[in-house]
Amino acid sequence: MKLKVKFLELEAGGKSVVVLNKEDAEDLGVSSLGRVRVKFNERELTAIVNTTTKLISEGVIGVYEEIKNALNLKEGVHIDVEITPFPTSLYFIRNKLRGRKLTYDEILEIVRDVVEGNLSDIEIASFVTALHSFGLDLDEATNLSIAMVKTGNTLKLDRPLIVDKHSIGGVPGDKTTLLVVPIIAACGLTIPKSSSRAITSAAGTADVVEPLMPVGLDIEEMREVVEKTNGCIVWGGSLYLAPADDIFVRVEHPLSIDPLLLPSIMSKKKAVGANLLVIDIPCGRGTKVKTIGEADLLAKDFIELGRRLGINVQCAVTYGEQPVGYAIGPSLEAREALSVLMGNKHVLDLIDKATDIAGILLEMSGKKDGKELALGALKSGKAERKMREIIAAQGGAPGIKLEDIAVGDQQFMACSNRAGYILWIDNTSIAEIARLAGSPKDKGAGILLHKKIGDRVDKDEPLFTIYAERSNKLQRALDGLEKIEIMGVGDRMEMLIHEVKERPLIKKTFMLER
Amino acid sequence: MKLKVKFLELEAGGKSVVVLNKEDAEDLGVSSLGRVRVKFNERELTAIVNTTTKLISEGVIGVYEEIKNALNLKEGVHIDVEITPFPTSLYFIRNKLRGRKLTYDEILEIVRDVVEGNLSDIEIASFVTALHSFGLDLDEATNLSIAMVKTGNTLKLDRPLIVDKHSIGGVPGDKTTLLVVPIIAACGLTIPKSSSRAITSAAGTADVVEPLMPVGLDIEEMREVVEKTNGCIVWGGSLYLAPADDIFVRVEHPLSIDPLLLPSIMSKKKAVGANLLVIDIPCGRGTKVKTIGEADLLAKDFIELGRRLGINVQCAVTYGEQPVGYAIGPSLEAREALSVLMGNKHVLDLIDKATDIAGILLEMSGKKDGKELALGALKSGKAERKMREIIAAQGGAPGIKLEDIAVGDQQFMACSNRAGYILWIDNTSIAEIARLAGSPKDKGAGILLHKKIGDRVDKDEPLFTIYAERSNKLQRALDGLEKIEIMGVGDRMEMLIHEVKERPLIKKTFMLER
Repeated sequence: MKLKVKFLELEAGGKSVVVLNKEDAEDLGVSSLGRVRVKFNERELTAIVNTTTKLISEGVIGVYEEIKNALNLKEGVHIDVEITPFPTSLYFIRNKLRGRKLTYDEILEIVRDVVEGNLSDIEIASFVTALHSFGLDLDEATNLSIAMVKTGNTLKLDRPLIVDKHSIGGVPGDKTTLLVVPIIAACGLTIPKSSSRAITSAAGTADVVEPLMPVGLDIEEMREVVEKTNGCIVWGGSLYLAPADDIFVRVEHPLSIDPLLLPSIMSKKKAVGANLLVIDIPCGRGTKVKTIGEADLLAKDFIELGRRLGINVQCAVTYGEQPVGYAIGPSLEAREALSVLMGNKHVLDLIDKATDIAGILLEMSGKKDGKELALGALKSGKAERKMREIIAAQGGAPGIKLEDIAVGDQQFMACSNRAGYILWIDNTSIAEIARLAGSPKDKGAGILLHKKIGDRVDKDEPLFTIYAERSNKLQRALDGLEKIEIMGVGDRMEMLIHEVKERPLIKKTFMLER
Repeated sequence: MKLKVKFLELEAGGKSVVVLNKEDAEDLGVSSLGRVRVKFNERELTAIVNTTTKLISEGVIGVYEEIKNALNLKEGVHIDVEITPFPTSLYFIRNKLRGRKLTYDEILEIVRDVVEGNLSDIEIASFVTALHSFGLDLDEATNLSIAMVKTGNTLKLDRPLIVDKHSIGGVPGDKTTLLVVPIIAACGLTIPKSSSRAITSAAGTADVVEPLMPVGLDIEEMREVVEKTNGCIVWGGSLYLAPADDIFVRVEHPLSIDPLLLPSIMSKKKAVGANLLVIDIPCGRGTKVKTIGEADLLAKDFIELGRRLGINVQCAVTYGEQPVGYAIGPSLEAREALSVLMGNKHVLDLIDKATDIAGILLEMSGKKDGKELALGALKSGKAERKMREIIAAQGGAPGIKLEDIAVGDQQFMACSNRAGYILWIDNTSIAEIARLAGSPKDKGAGILLHKKIGDRVDKDEPLFTIYAERSNKLQRALDGLEKIEIMGVGDRMEMLIHEVKERPLIKKTFMLER
């Protein structure tokens, strides 16, 4: 069938989508969400069909930007449209929906079609939901990891040993990477670190690094930085490592499910060529993993998956019931990390966590007394010098001072209405209030804690300060504070957690950061 | 935030969708597939957000037709846009994703949001997949049925007894309803039958009835027809009975899953006020239900679900290994049904099935010797007269003759290349070839069988004829015949079913008709 092209001037999120009049679709024998093959001047591709009864008339085909560009179309030209069967990968998804285990070939075909935009949102959502409901075993997780590596970029470094670290996320203020990378690189190991931006949190590592240096490097630029300095901290989004994952994340977020946690993380590590890897599993109330038993089970899977992918993995189960350090939000966190590197501030938990993780990596590489080595690199200023080298290599200002990192000038300091002890700090509430204040988009927005769990506080003593770049966002955060509690102050004998007076609406927290 | 309206001139399938520039979305604190509240001149609604980096610039909001109409917008006006949380129903979907059983209130909220377009394709697909993976128990099926009735139209008839029949589908050529309705109505019972169009089959009952009379009645017109004649056969799609189901079907089709089979059917029966119901469960290879044991289990659920909804249900497990009668395709089937009603043709299996089902309904209503009563109504011409009354009441020509029903003039007769017996007829292949020939859109397209299972055939004797309205579609069907076998001719001792030489690609048949 020949149809006349009409541009819709819309993107379909990377998918190839066309809109047909219902009559034409029926004549072709294709229903909504079926597939057609479209051809123009030697070029052709498979597109997903949407149908309409009025906005596209008979004889016309509405095309999204993706198809316009791929086929190099002009408005008004006629293109060939023929029915084509559902892609084979859809049959494999249907197998999973029947509870069958998927083989490598099947998984590769699904992942390839996801990356190439050949599967609809409905099909991808159903695949992810089926993985969540039926579970995926370690064979499937391994094959998914390999398929995700195979359908994206890989980093090629001519080094025998490449180390990496990763946190599964869930703790606000976790700027550990900003210390671990320069410590490790300063100790002579190679650590090509890619990080993500925030999805549900107040700031991802890529957001936190951005006030210090550019993070949107492509894979070739990343390679140059690492070859020069032994390390880097760049944003994963512009590297196209395991790009299928970015598409899965888009689906997982509204559903609050994360069946791809293991392959997602491990594929990105495999894609940068890591041999030695520490996975940080923050544990406790208000994090992803609530109990140590659960953390150990997850660690077991990471270690075994690593073995199958040729990566030597160790896990660090860490305390996650409150933020790491005092600062939450991109610029506040960047300042805190830099001041620790510069030896200006002694943020004990941050330093302890960073040197623990760096220490494990150093020992895995064969060095002795890893933790002491790491502490030495930090205290001697070697880590700071390395960080400034990396900043320079990534295109930032190596001489950057703390004052150069601007924080929001709209501020509100919250004080305690009673004397007592800090009994708890709610990670989720912190992320929510920081986001209301503008974080991570407004780099200077966030929260600075003045007290942490166990600290003694007097009446009217400051608990935390909210920072925002714009007054309306500060107001939004303050409105949020009316409903959301960040910290609990009380005596150590208080037993009641909360009352349940009617059937509660369970808005379980979900963190997709990984 | 105030944003300037740009019309996208596209429909979003009933959903409220807006497209924002990524910068604006981040400023609002909303991500792709999150929700915003949009307001204009006292009117407001919640919309799902898509984001783009270039086609919608900052300060602009792209709106689909649904929102343009609901808010009565003009291009270029400024509207208020604020972030709003995910709808509560999404939290209930997430509960189901954690394997929890849903309560009535939760199900009602989900179904209402589905009907009102407040849930994205991803969320609906995940809900349907979760129902498929975790299963839904009879409490949930009951509550889904009630919620689907509550969110649509209902038929109000002032009759004490309302009967209905339904086939779960899967057998080509099943025009039983065209006999049962006039037989039942002629015997004095009330049968307000609504039917669907084909989704994956060659023709739905609504498609088959259309050559005889209009089927696109609204609910008020349906009521008038039934009050006048005791019966009707109309298309469900224009009645808005249980409209959530039409949205679920759109998702289920590409996924080849049908977890809503029971509530879908039962909600539509409850919505027309049925008290007595026969469910036809065709059984055998090439149908939905392969074994009699499986059919009995399904029957048990239908009966129990009926009890909970106040509908007295009986089931008829019927032979489904080949088409019912000889004709497949709207006009061919309409002709066959009409000629049986007129007493011109004795299509034994069709007559047997129709009078069995009518007989059960008659006995359920308290009459004796139901099957004989039904046969009597057919043979005496009472059923034909009643059918012509219904045709007239629905706006058709009551004097319609067989010749008035046009069939395709592009024909191909397939003959046997050997002598033997018809060993099997493949229901799925029949549907596929009939669809390639243009059925159901081209009413005159389809297949007429000349032989059925067990019949003796000589070499070069006709097996079946393909009908099409256009030569290119006949050709398409003939090309299909090269790859797909419709009938098997052989000796009764042939044992080999097929050979498997390499890992097979399982393209399991899926029938969504119900």
